[in-house]
Amino acid sequence: MATIALLTDFGTRDPYVAAVKGVIAARCDARIEDLTHEIAPFDVFGAAWFLRDVVSYWPDGTIFVVVIDPGVGTTRRILAASGDGKTLLAPDNGVLTFAGGEVHAVENESFFLPNGSNTFHGRDRFAPLAAAVANGTRLEELGPRVDDFVRVDYTPPSYGDDQIDGTIVAVDRFGNLITDIAASKVRFDPVLRSGWHVVDRLERNYGDAKDGPFLIAGSTGCIELSVANGSAAELLQLARGEKVSITPK
Amino acid sequence: MATIALLTDFGTRDPYVAAVKGVIAARCDARIEDLTHEIAPFDVFGAAWFLRDVVSYWPDGTIFVVVIDPGVGTTRRILAASGDGKTLLAPDNGVLTFAGGEVHAVENESFFLPNGSNTFHGRDRFAPLAAAVANGTRLEELGPRVDDFVRVDYTPPSYGDDQIDGTIVAVDRFGNLITDIAASKVRFDPVLRSGWHVVDRLERNYGDAKDGPFLIAGSTGCIELSVANGSAAELLQLARGEKVSITPK
Amino acid sequence: MATIALLTDFGTRDPYVAAVKGVIAARCDARIEDLTHEIAPFDVFGAAWFLRDVVSYWPDGTIFVVVIDPGVGTTRRILAASGDGKTLLAPDNGVLTFAGGEVHAVENESFFLPNGSNTFHGRDRFAPLAAAVANGTRLEELGPRVDDFVRVDYTPPSYGDDQIDGTIVAVDRFGNLITDIAASKVRFDPVLRSGWHVVDRLERNYGDAKDGPFLIAGSTGCIELSVANGSAAELLQLARGEKVSITPK
Repeated sequence: MATIALLTDFGTRDPYVAAVKGVIAARCDARIEDLTHEIAPFDVFGAAWFLRDVVSYWPDGTIFVVVIDPGVGTTRRILAASGDGKTLLAPDNGVLTFAGGEVHAVENESFFLPNGSNTFHGRDRFAPLAAAVANGTRLEELGPRVDDFVRVDYTPPSYGDDQIDGTIVAVDRFGNLITDIAASKVRFDPVLRSGWHVVDRLERNYGDAKDGPFLIAGSTGCIELSVANGSAAELLQLARGEKVSITPK
Repeated sequence: MATIALLTDFGTRDPYVAAVKGVIAARCDARIEDLTHEIAPFDVFGAAWFLRDVVSYWPDGTIFVVVIDPGVGTTRRILAASGDGKTLLAPDNGVLTFAGGEVHAVENESFFLPNGSNTFHGRDRFAPLAAAVANGTRLEELGPRVDDFVRVDYTPPSYGDDQIDGTIVAVDRFGNLITDIAASKVRFDPVLRSGWHVVDRLERNYGDAKDGPFLIAGSTGCIELSVANGSAAELLQLARGEKVSITPK
Repeated sequence: MATIALLTDFGTRDPYVAAVKGVIAARCDARIEDLTHEIAPFDVFGAAWFLRDVVSYWPDGTIFVVVIDPGVGTTRRILAASGDGKTLLAPDNGVLTFAGGEVHAVENESFFLPNGSNTFHGRDRFAPLAAAVANGTRLEELGPRVDDFVRVDYTPPSYGDDQIDGTIVAVDRFGNLITDIAASKVRFDPVLRSGWHVVDRLERNYGDAKDGPFLIAGSTGCIELSVANGSAAELLQLARGEKVSITPK
């Protein structure tokens, strides 16, 4: 049985997710799983980074339906990407930036719901497309391969011998400030600077850490700024997008 | 395998949804899907309208469990309705107003959990009823057919040649103000008035719209008041229940 | 097919739940169900009490994955408990206080993800352990039986002939203040006192109750402080942990 995993900015209180699930359930036998529906409205970068953290853990054959879609109903294309044994369906707005793989533009409208809306492609296009893929439709049948899809604006970290520059790419529920700097590439005793702040304490886990901010290799292997039993985001007043630099102590 | 779809105002942080799912999982082999648990507490109209938007998209045989139930433990009845190939279980308080179909009052208590509470029929009555229906119990076995079930107070829109009167029936997470006026019945160039506001710009999608409020045919085919990359509800300070009228420009 | 039920404090907007589900889905064929991910961050007592309310309703064979884990990456142990036909996987911090059963300390690291993090055992250890149990691994294979696991600090209610003393152990979304005093053991006409407050009205359900606070036998069979169509927590300004006493009127 195929698995269809949903990632949207719909929230959970409106009928949108329920309609998407209904269309999928009516058209195929797949297992439907929620990744999250709490991507901030229209936050394309947030969704792109979320996928980067998550896709590899899912089994081969998983179909990801990604509906963060401020351009719904405009001429923006719908993409169907495959890579690493998975399929991703998403609007062409940058959410697939880190997904890689072979990307097709969906031009075959025969899988869309008839008389669909201009405002809810999640239900009218993405859901039936996901069901079609679950039922064995190949990406070649959906449309031609393309290379010119949209990427989000993102500068990867630069790793110098005595300075590493990166970015805070996510802030989680616990207030951890998550950078894109791979901890494995920090081969010296680090001092992190961001805005006014200087943090030079490195911890191995949250529980043994003392008061105040510290650095830690987080769940994705990247350096995070954390505070034990508190929120680094609140304490330091830093947010996504802030630049950070790491130098030797 | 049957699908049981849950719609409640329980929220997700308390043990209520988890107990409902456990009772269902222990008693039948159905797939359990969340529609939402974020209906505002006791918001019967909100749940009724949610069902109106969603039920038709689900496959035949789906069993909807609707627990928005301020009258739990009183003499209010439990209803089991069937229509359009689906079954709905709900308290008799108006949540089934737009669901139609054949409605039975549940009088057969043999399916309830023994020694159940007066305060949590979701777990003690609705969940085992849903499992029973999934296991093949027919509505006739649950209780007699009834016609006198409760409806919510609702005036459908009036469609005149030069004036259409309707109501804002929902406000979604994005701040879209959703009316009950079918866009397909607006056969002239429209001006919408609600409270102090006059909106006469009609757009085909959110992404191409310029600043300020505009009208759009939304996901349910009804006229919505929207603001590109913003919240119409906040900008216009309008809420559910407000009357709207549409006249020719 | 086994059922794996997830209880965490991860929230739903970050990639954490999605990664846990992916690891499980990639390693076994179980059905994955959300209990909740909205336990307050690090709220071990809240999770322990949640389990107490919920576990018994789930079918035999259910595997509960409990990740409220402020000590992740420290020397705190991972526990695997079985009782009442179910299995629970949790950190050794008190979340299993009310779960009972046979408890093992997980020492066999062969089921962990290779190169796992110190900060996200939900994904790197708990998820593959759950999959292993779903695939038939016995708790004896995970590690030795232990008796010295951590319990939360909790004093059960004392039931005297003319005074019962208990505690507010939960506050739900509706603002109900839930005590640990079994309603079936209150064999007199009760007056409840907590802080400044005296409440002596006992109701059978919410819907028939008049204005103001009242007592009711709640969904777990314990005495709750409630307000019809309102929040007892807000009206009375009481919170979890407050002591309550009940005496005859």
